[in-house]
Amino acid sequence: MANFEGLNSITLNPGDELPPLASGRMRLYNMMFCPFAHRSVLYISKKKLPVEVINVNLMEKPDWFVQRNPLGKVPMIEHDGKVVFESLIVNEYLDELFPETAILPTDPYERAQQKILVERLSSVTAAFFAFMMNKDGDYKQAKDGMKKALENAESLLVDDFYGDIAVWPIFERFPIITLNPKFGVKKFPGIKYPKLSAYIKRMKKQPEIKAVMKPIELHEKFLKSAWIEKNPDYNLGI
Amino acid sequence: MANFEGLNSITLNPGDELPPLASGRMRLYNMMFCPFAHRSVLYISKKKLPVEVINVNLMEKPDWFVQRNPLGKVPMIEHDGKVVFESLIVNEYLDELFPETAILPTDPYERAQQKILVERLSSVTAAFFAFMMNKDGDYKQAKDGMKKALENAESLLVDDFYGDIAVWPIFERFPIITLNPKFGVKKFPGIKYPKLSAYIKRMKKQPEIKAVMKPIELHEKFLKSAWIEKNPDYNLGI
Repeated sequence: MANFEGLNSITLNPGDELPPLASGRMRLYNMMFCPFAHRSVLYISKKKLPVEVINVNLMEKPDWFVQRNPLGKVPMIEHDGKVVFESLIVNEYLDELFPETAILPTDPYERAQQKILVERLSSVTAAFFAFMMNKDGDYKQAKDGMKKALENAESLLVDDFYGDIAVWPIFERFPIITLNPKFGVKKFPGIKYPKLSAYIKRMKKQPEIKAVMKPIELHEKFLKSAWIEKNPDYNLGI
Repeated sequence: MANFEGLNSITLNPGDELPPLASGRMRLYNMMFCPFAHRSVLYISKKKLPVEVINVNLMEKPDWFVQRNPLGKVPMIEHDGKVVFESLIVNEYLDELFPETAILPTDPYERAQQKILVERLSSVTAAFFAFMMNKDGDYKQAKDGMKKALENAESLLVDDFYGDIAVWPIFERFPIITLNPKFGVKKFPGIKYPKLSAYIKRMKKQPEIKAVMKPIELHEKFLKSAWIEKNPDYNLGI
């Protein structure tokens, strides 16, 4: 996307100098494989905001990052001495700052419904991580949890909603579960989830999704480096 | 508060009839001891909105409640066929619906900072519940967690912020920890937390806090009935 500068730039580590940020410029602190930062990347992508990106090592955090954000999490936005973090707060902030490209509806009731939907779909994220980090061997419980979360998503998804961006990052990563035979999952989402399938199909056509989508093998490789090898390969794919 | 009708009314159970809601009227579904519902009660109290209250049994939920809110949680707002739930979403919705009494600042950056603060203070709620439900006997770990959360709050609290309402419910309940000798906590918050003490002192003077504050013994009694006896006494104190 022409609006991003440095989206796939080398990750900065402790000791690396932080480039100065010009007045009036907006910067996104990002980690290329973080699903929460991905939410703001998609938002910025859809709003076509000119943003420069700094990719940050989240395992060993540079001082200048922790100074700006004591939680040490991405996404974080910085401009003119102001910093905002937490993905949903960042996205709402961007809508309020640039209302001409607002993604959340302006009607209070519609806004509230969209936010509730995002909240209710958050169980999908929890279930995905529980599944991937499951250690019980047979995946029975983790699979039940995942099934419940996906059925919940199937019942909730509507044709078009602001939250589609907020939940997409986890659905982009979800097919990872089909790559490892030990999980015993052949297809995702499969015929049992027609609404979810339609949602995924629709989302994959959106320019803002396509522009920053990563191959599923890359997502898997990163997760392995981070969770199994405990040595996240932040620069994978560049 | 004159703006509430039925704030301390008898809790409705499955089988109880839901009174009709007149057009143009706003209703809050509440549970008298729920700290999350308390957030919206305080918000409504501060905004002086005329609201009728239905107290709901959350252990055995009436059908009409689950039909309106599949999560079965309070607070929930209903008016003119519209329902909104999740405490922070409800409160923002009320601000958007009645901007003349808005509590969140209108400046986007200030708004974002206030929301971030609420998020960062949420560890206090988690620590309080972990402490109260702790089963390890010596409370060492739970106490460490609580200390960390309170030190975090001490470092974050600022003189005046919208989030004061969002975090008050947990601080109103916190002194419960001084009531049971086995916890080994004599004072709350104590001299180590001057900012937290000043915050609590300031909050206790606010009319909207005073109007709906409950004696600490009542909070303790309810928690005991709910967590130890597994038989929540929803009508305590009325």
